[in-house]
Amino acid sequence: MSYLKDNFLLTNKSAEKLYFDYAKDMPIFDYHCHLPEKQLLENAEFNDVFEIWLKGDHYKWRLMRNYGINEEFITGDKSNKEKFVTYCKVLGTAFGNPLYHWSQVELKEFFNCEIEINEQNAELIWNWCNDYIALNHITPQSLIEKSNVTHLFTTNEIFDDLTTFEKIAKKDYKFKVIPAFRADKIMNIDAAPYCDYIKILEGITHPIKNIEDLEKAIEIRLNEFIKVGTTAADIAVEKVLPVASKEDADNAFKSVLSGNGVSIEQADAFKGYFTYFLMKLYAKYKIATELHVGAMRNNNAKMLAKLGLDTGFDSISDTNSIGYMSRLFDRLNNEDSLPKTIVFNLNPKMNAEIMTLIGSFQSDEANGKMQYGPAWWFLDNKVGMEKHLEDLTATGHIAVFVGMLTDSRSLLSYPRHHYFRRILCNYLGGMMEKGEMTNDFELVGKVVQDISYNNSIKYLGVK
Amino acid sequence: MSYLKDNFLLTNKSAEKLYFDYAKDMPIFDYHCHLPEKQLLENAEFNDVFEIWLKGDHYKWRLMRNYGINEEFITGDKSNKEKFVTYCKVLGTAFGNPLYHWSQVELKEFFNCEIEINEQNAELIWNWCNDYIALNHITPQSLIEKSNVTHLFTTNEIFDDLTTFEKIAKKDYKFKVIPAFRADKIMNIDAAPYCDYIKILEGITHPIKNIEDLEKAIEIRLNEFIKVGTTAADIAVEKVLPVASKEDADNAFKSVLSGNGVSIEQADAFKGYFTYFLMKLYAKYKIATELHVGAMRNNNAKMLAKLGLDTGFDSISDTNSIGYMSRLFDRLNNEDSLPKTIVFNLNPKMNAEIMTLIGSFQSDEANGKMQYGPAWWFLDNKVGMEKHLEDLTATGHIAVFVGMLTDSRSLLSYPRHHYFRRILCNYLGGMMEKGEMTNDFELVGKVVQDISYNNSIKYLGVK
Amino acid sequence: MSYLKDNFLLTNKSAEKLYFDYAKDMPIFDYHCHLPEKQLLENAEFNDVFEIWLKGDHYKWRLMRNYGINEEFITGDKSNKEKFVTYCKVLGTAFGNPLYHWSQVELKEFFNCEIEINEQNAELIWNWCNDYIALNHITPQSLIEKSNVTHLFTTNEIFDDLTTFEKIAKKDYKFKVIPAFRADKIMNIDAAPYCDYIKILEGITHPIKNIEDLEKAIEIRLNEFIKVGTTAADIAVEKVLPVASKEDADNAFKSVLSGNGVSIEQADAFKGYFTYFLMKLYAKYKIATELHVGAMRNNNAKMLAKLGLDTGFDSISDTNSIGYMSRLFDRLNNEDSLPKTIVFNLNPKMNAEIMTLIGSFQSDEANGKMQYGPAWWFLDNKVGMEKHLEDLTATGHIAVFVGMLTDSRSLLSYPRHHYFRRILCNYLGGMMEKGEMTNDFELVGKVVQDISYNNSIKYLGVK
Repeated sequence: MSYLKDNFLLTNKSAEKLYFDYAKDMPIFDYHCHLPEKQLLENAEFNDVFEIWLKGDHYKWRLMRNYGINEEFITGDKSNKEKFVTYCKVLGTAFGNPLYHWSQVELKEFFNCEIEINEQNAELIWNWCNDYIALNHITPQSLIEKSNVTHLFTTNEIFDDLTTFEKIAKKDYKFKVIPAFRADKIMNIDAAPYCDYIKILEGITHPIKNIEDLEKAIEIRLNEFIKVGTTAADIAVEKVLPVASKEDADNAFKSVLSGNGVSIEQADAFKGYFTYFLMKLYAKYKIATELHVGAMRNNNAKMLAKLGLDTGFDSISDTNSIGYMSRLFDRLNNEDSLPKTIVFNLNPKMNAEIMTLIGSFQSDEANGKMQYGPAWWFLDNKVGMEKHLEDLTATGHIAVFVGMLTDSRSLLSYPRHHYFRRILCNYLGGMMEKGEMTNDFELVGKVVQDISYNNSIKYLGVK
Repeated sequence: MSYLKDNFLLTNKSAEKLYFDYAKDMPIFDYHCHLPEKQLLENAEFNDVFEIWLKGDHYKWRLMRNYGINEEFITGDKSNKEKFVTYCKVLGTAFGNPLYHWSQVELKEFFNCEIEINEQNAELIWNWCNDYIALNHITPQSLIEKSNVTHLFTTNEIFDDLTTFEKIAKKDYKFKVIPAFRADKIMNIDAAPYCDYIKILEGITHPIKNIEDLEKAIEIRLNEFIKVGTTAADIAVEKVLPVASKEDADNAFKSVLSGNGVSIEQADAFKGYFTYFLMKLYAKYKIATELHVGAMRNNNAKMLAKLGLDTGFDSISDTNSIGYMSRLFDRLNNEDSLPKTIVFNLNPKMNAEIMTLIGSFQSDEANGKMQYGPAWWFLDNKVGMEKHLEDLTATGHIAVFVGMLTDSRSLLSYPRHHYFRRILCNYLGGMMEKGEMTNDFELVGKVVQDISYNNSIKYLGVK
Repeated sequence: MSYLKDNFLLTNKSAEKLYFDYAKDMPIFDYHCHLPEKQLLENAEFNDVFEIWLKGDHYKWRLMRNYGINEEFITGDKSNKEKFVTYCKVLGTAFGNPLYHWSQVELKEFFNCEIEINEQNAELIWNWCNDYIALNHITPQSLIEKSNVTHLFTTNEIFDDLTTFEKIAKKDYKFKVIPAFRADKIMNIDAAPYCDYIKILEGITHPIKNIEDLEKAIEIRLNEFIKVGTTAADIAVEKVLPVASKEDADNAFKSVLSGNGVSIEQADAFKGYFTYFLMKLYAKYKIATELHVGAMRNNNAKMLAKLGLDTGFDSISDTNSIGYMSRLFDRLNNEDSLPKTIVFNLNPKMNAEIMTLIGSFQSDEANGKMQYGPAWWFLDNKVGMEKHLEDLTATGHIAVFVGMLTDSRSLLSYPRHHYFRRILCNYLGGMMEKGEMTNDFELVGKVVQDISYNNSIKYLGVK
């Protein structure tokens, strides 16, 4: 039996009451993830625990690399079982790492397996889980429904095929799948395949010769996303750039289209203008912006060449400027075009400056119009979540917080919502027991339920 | 009855002993606040709880905005009571926010009201407090005397009328009101009304044609401040700038006087030189400098136009350079002109670098000549104070710390001194109970009393 | 009797079990310190407690300065006893400062003295310790052997005399003394005595006219270090610089040799190239790099002139760029020349970005090839170590961590290894008791022993 008890992360009675009486049974709205919608449509059965648990999960790969495991056992040619056993060995002593908790919780929730993960038990777990899979015919649908998910937002590029979502909507799933709109590939003008992306976009809209054409094409696509239910858009930047003029952006765009490429300055001008344009467009359609700031991607060129993007070689950037972020929001606000915005910040040292900045741009357009997003990616762990809650409550208002998401490529990540809820309940319950806040469970329980589910449903206007 | 108990924030017996036996009865010296001296002189009775508790308090406004309240209920045309009820509603679920504690403490201390603040109780509290006000004839004097304040430093511009202080001194108040000297309006050469300020200064000193004249005028005014008791001066900058030459500063100054304005570079040169000049002047007169670093002001141009300065639209800057700060202090130190300095830093990520820097410029001129100021503004909350104490003790010496201030525009803010003292006692008491420091209450209690009051009195040389 | 109990810093039973059953008796490998090897060879007896405890320890000096002590009592002409008494007075109320703990532990471990340090007890302690010294004939050897040290790495400049190490090796010490290689004086091309250093290097290698000659000379010296056991090299920079071309570095080098000095840009180019060259060289010889980043040195010019380097006037820099660090590691990695590297970062705000960066450059060359070094210098305290462990476990793998070092100039610093071990055991024990990790003491105890000693022995390949 593993160390996981029912009161995991709940260190006092008030916390337990809040979690079990209020949080536990709330459904899940996963308003930002990276699940492939095609996998959700196909809904194929899984063959072994490796396929569900390790394949494609670069969080787990990274932990193995940090330990010193040969890449053969991570993404290489070793068998599924050899990789599985190696991961169990590495995980067995990864005390304090979020995967140490998540992996154990995932086995319990999805495979009813309570064996403690370590090198010695690896074989036993391999057999247990594979027996369970063979017996229970596990599919994406079954995993999501078991997790009590009512809605999930995938992340889709502007030219993705939306018919998949229409087809999913016709199935008898107990949850809705809705794409969040993302134009990052159209923003990143300095990427090698940029002109290819523009050609794809032209193919589904109209000829694009200048930034005016481009903007119209984007608006057309956004409207098509809205038809399948989209209410949120993603923007991911290493840092917020100054807003350049449309003319400078147009020049950069034409330079790339004509095959002349762009300088760093031109690329920055384009991206700076484009972020502004997109947010203004989102405001027009009352689309909420999920602004992700602070990832430094693809540090390791050798591994990028070998494994491609999103394989575990990103890290935290230090380049975001709070001044540029202030001026971007202020300009949009002056033009009555600042959309509802959730800022996801990857560098914890910038929490305080971003949290206090967004507090300068609130309005009654929504409860918590400008949101400081939950602890994200490298920060998505117990310490990171606790610090996020401390910082958020110190300078903001906890009751309107839109709460947790998974940001995950894995179907097993939903327990992270409950991981967060336990930490939230423990945080509030701790203050209750210490006499630092009210003992009115009804009032506090309502806030817990709102953060768990209701706030995000309301904020993102899903039905 | 609210959640506030006598042992609020005191989680162990040693903490309670330290607070109740040593800290509780120490008087208050509020060595930096923004109370208007004219209000203290007029000493008019308040009419309702809104006037005392909400009017003009942009901390409270900001919390309401973060929740999503319409500005009508914050600074707009709604009635005092409607605004009050709305604030109670918002506060009722603002768990973890410092205002959640402060507001409840303020009701208890100043209105003897122990009703828990929330939407449901708003009407009850409104009536209770207004009855109390009608019965007790509350004035600025009564509020300050009830708080056991012996001295307070207001913050005054260089051309403020000092006769107000002379008049206050003649009243039978049990506390002294002394202005801290501030030349920020004379430093901020790029502000629109700069030439008007210079004209005012000329009106009370002499014609000012160049920086030499300006410096002499400032020294004259400083001497007049000293006559009414001034021992501290304030400097507020977003960041410390390089020290430019006096010649460059003079050129920038003349350019503005002649109506030609200044470039950003010229303004920075002027400000960089001017900070150096002011600190050198303060050293000459043994005036302590309170150097405030790290606020990014007026993010929201629309609300600035509507409501003016200091209405809740500032945030934390990320631009301070520890290198420039080092060179400023080093130059002054080399010229035997580094004054006693309290550095107030708004960006918590810079705590460690500033704390270790000032440790490089100590001398026996004072106990803790270079001080790391208490948690300030956005950091002035439980987590911020605890982190400040942890960081301060780890790299500095706690026993010479000058302690808390309010930095407030509100007459109800004095309980923050006790909020800080409870946190201080809990921090020390916790270490005592865990066997991490001596159990000698006499020794520790003396340190608590020094930090609560004695150190600031001695450091700032007030009588 | 002082506040120190056997279970100091161990707040629960699991922590006690981990420390006493697993950590306590592990030997010490101090893989980075600044002990002078000549003192270790001479092995002279100490005369009084001041000589051992205060002389040359700029950590303690700094604390006295932070309090406001006159320099006469720190580094000046006052007697040993007067300085000792003053330090005891200052320390008596330095609650929360690491020296408050370390000093008390040092008296207990090395002088069997359990008197609480404060002003009142100073005389008593002075007599006790000096009696103990007179009776026990304390030498460097006796102090190190009492601490159960098996190996220690001193820090040596490239031109230091290595015969001292050969002589030490012939003595009957129970510990090995091995130099870590350091070329900082050859890197810092903008330092005044640079050409003198080059002449010394020429004297023990060959004529050096250009960077090619310089590189060969360095490689010659590195090989001589390797002959006396060197397996680690130190590089200390305020910040990682961009890697300039060898040609630019050569031009800067020749400019200095010819007496023309260098511009800041030239110096940065040289240092940026040189860091790259050194790490590549270390990779060739499988030497581990200890990269120290983030100190801002010699802030106080007046005290630098009076007391020289390393006397307590350094602080934490804010200038490191994670982007340049990424590109340095990536270039070396692309050239199959990234050595095992331990990054020591002095600015805690950069923990997260550096920890996640190094996670992008792991390989199976070693367990934890890229290491995030332990809390260092100003961070080497309870809060700093706890934060380091939290950050390390959240984003890395704790079981391969190489653990603690002293970085000290004092022979009394070895108890810091046990200070760290107690904090480590308390951190893990706390998670065990809270049900956040396994209760398998054998598994956890093994990790504790590895971090205490085995990992560093294996990682640095000492015998």
